Amino acid sequence: MTVSDRWLLPDGVEDILPPLAGQIESLRRDVMDTCQRWGYQLVIPPLIEYLESLFTGTGHDLELQTFKLTDQLTGRMMGLRADMTPQAARIDAHTLGQEGITRLCYAGHVLHTRPRHMLTGRTPIQAGCELFGSASESADMEVISLMLETLRVSGLPRIHLDLAHVAIYETLVGEAGFDRDTGAAIFDAMARKSVPELDELLGGCPPGSAGSMLRELARVSGGKDALREAKRILEGAPEPLRQALDQLDRVADMLAGNYPEVSFGFDFCELRGYNYHTGLVFAAYVPGHGDAVAKGGRYDAIGSDFGRARPATGFSLDIRALVSLGQRASRAGKAIWAPATEDPALVGVISGLRMTETVIRALPEDEGVDPGSRNCDRALVKRDGQWVVEQLD
Amino acid sequence: MTVSDRWLLPDGVEDILPPLAGQIESLRRDVMDTCQRWGYQLVIPPLIEYLESLFTGTGHDLELQTFKLTDQLTGRMMGLRADMTPQAARIDAHTLGQEGITRLCYAGHVLHTRPRHMLTGRTPIQAGCELFGSASESADMEVISLMLETLRVSGLPRIHLDLAHVAIYETLVGEAGFDRDTGAAIFDAMARKSVPELDELLGGCPPGSAGSMLRELARVSGGKDALREAKRILEGAPEPLRQALDQLDRVADMLAGNYPEVSFGFDFCELRGYNYHTGLVFAAYVPGHGDAVAKGGRYDAIGSDFGRARPATGFSLDIRALVSLGQRASRAGKAIWAPATEDPALVGVISGLRMTETVIRALPEDEGVDPGSRNCDRALVKRDGQWVVEQLD
Repeated sequence: MTVSDRWLLPDGVEDILPPLAGQIESLRRDVMDTCQRWGYQLVIPPLIEYLESLFTGTGHDLELQTFKLTDQLTGRMMGLRADMTPQAARIDAHTLGQEGITRLCYAGHVLHTRPRHMLTGRTPIQAGCELFGSASESADMEVISLMLETLRVSGLPRIHLDLAHVAIYETLVGEAGFDRDTGAAIFDAMARKSVPELDELLGGCPPGSAGSMLRELARVSGGKDALREAKRILEGAPEPLRQALDQLDRVADMLAGNYPEVSFGFDFCELRGYNYHTGLVFAAYVPGHGDAVAKGGRYDAIGSDFGRARPATGFSLDIRALVSLGQRASRAGKAIWAPATEDPALVGVISGLRMTETVIRALPEDEGVDPGSRNCDRALVKRDGQWVVEQLD
Repeated sequence: MTVSDRWLLPDGVEDILPPLAGQIESLRRDVMDTCQRWGYQLVIPPLIEYLESLFTGTGHDLELQTFKLTDQLTGRMMGLRADMTPQAARIDAHTLGQEGITRLCYAGHVLHTRPRHMLTGRTPIQAGCELFGSASESADMEVISLMLETLRVSGLPRIHLDLAHVAIYETLVGEAGFDRDTGAAIFDAMARKSVPELDELLGGCPPGSAGSMLRELARVSGGKDALREAKRILEGAPEPLRQALDQLDRVADMLAGNYPEVSFGFDFCELRGYNYHTGLVFAAYVPGHGDAVAKGGRYDAIGSDFGRARPATGFSLDIRALVSLGQRASRAGKAIWAPATEDPALVGVISGLRMTETVIRALPEDEGVDPGSRNCDRALVKRDGQWVVEQLD
């Protein structure tokens, strides 16, 4: 192995350097502070857990995304978290076990065996909020509003929000009673929104059947018009489906009132990346970036898989991606240069200044160095026996 | 697997809950802000790297502590970082590659295959600072001073600082020319400070020989008296050893002047946990806790292993352990309770309050709940058509 090979990082793994690292830290703090001001309490779930806990209540996608390792203490298999939402659900169901509403937030690295997206690579910095104990639409509204608020804090321009409802697809597929292979083929074609494949798979279903409704719905997406069209298609569908559409309608109306600057759309067969969701789901997009910048939704089933039935909804986002896409003013100020001179008075002055300012003390090797090249715009100098801060040219 | 098994976390792995998670986050911020005000710039090294990069320039201990996994994209072995200092050295040597002094800081989870200590478990939260490009004693002094400053910020009482110098042991062992097995046995006995074993291993060395000096030095530790005793033992030793003792003397004097509240001690054969160090090393202790709360030192060799010779010194600590040991006032304030009432004016008032306060909005399930049980000491109520904040009894 040559020296230069040692420097290579695996694909999708990166060193985050100044000033980007500082911007990420600053956004991380602002997002966490916003969540806490909405009453969400910080938890720090572990980076590793036994596989069974990590996968309880989650789908197959998460299993493929998870790095596995052996616990040398017990010989059992552990995984590196690929998603913190199921961890928060476990904490709510078991570790905390509070009665009533519980609001949790978190921020930390997750690891993926394969990069999901160029911007996030294999080590995204996931931040999110989860609300447990409420099945109400107000809870869905609160979580969506908080997500939009954190995106505003991130300096993201022109948010588009897609609303969907997992129950629509699942109920129709259940009604239609496909065999396992056909079900999987439909899921796959639906996730890719491949209309020709869906036509082939579902073309034989009689009009008015669940399969036919599925095929028609896959073609429909967009704003209020799409919602009306979906209501027409699902006119004869079972009551829960029509309720799901009504819910989408109400939530969109409430959001449109509170967030007039956000554009809304509906997608009735949304499946991508919803591993454990059961109800209303949502994803935020910005122009020019194909992936969602934040997403979430209702997942009422995980709690019961952990032995305690709890309605739940939440959202998460990738701080690293948000920093790349957002437009936030840099807060990094310039520093003050202090000479290497041994002088107790200087030590005192530096220590006072450091309560609010950045002070870089020169070292012997710095002789002849231009303080401007070290991000300093001022310097400590001795005038008439006093240490004072002077502007550098 | 039963439901309750799914809840179990591996030994040395924990969920960090409120309010502890908030205290950790708060100390993490204060430590990072302190480092940045001393001119240390934040970097975020990756959680995973190829094994060769993680182990370059480091010792065997780190290899045993590192979880390994296979990169599914390349089939190569990767490791989960067990220590961020070598990562910072790689970033300085390769990724940044700056001329002159470079100051870096970082904070994040590291993972260990086995718990090092009860308080830290297998997933400590390591924070640290590294100073590259200066071989001067001023650099050592700056790093020790900054470490003491972060411990002050952590609210740790009565710090004891142990100073040592890796070159003393290494030069004597080199002089003595032990075979490999004897060398390993001495290293082991020295690390455990086992005087009887050392007597057996080194008892046959003639007076004045390197082996005999080693045996005598292992008995010496403590304050200024110990330093005088070590100077006497090493009177006939090679020049570099006497220089090392002189350096310990000067650094201790400077520190005693600036930090009169810190007690100092010397340990001339300190080895524990210094995997890649080459010069002056130091460790901070608090009463009642056997492990160092922060440690560091000079490691001039890693840079050249990464293909760029750079003098380096730095320190790191475990935020999780510091929170348990320190005495910091909790900053967590109480929240304001807002009713579930649908009212645009209330939405406006809540959003204004949330710029500085925590406001928890009631959900339908909260009917009859006592806001005090949700950490609220005030509530939003409507008086004469206006929303006002009132103190709760």
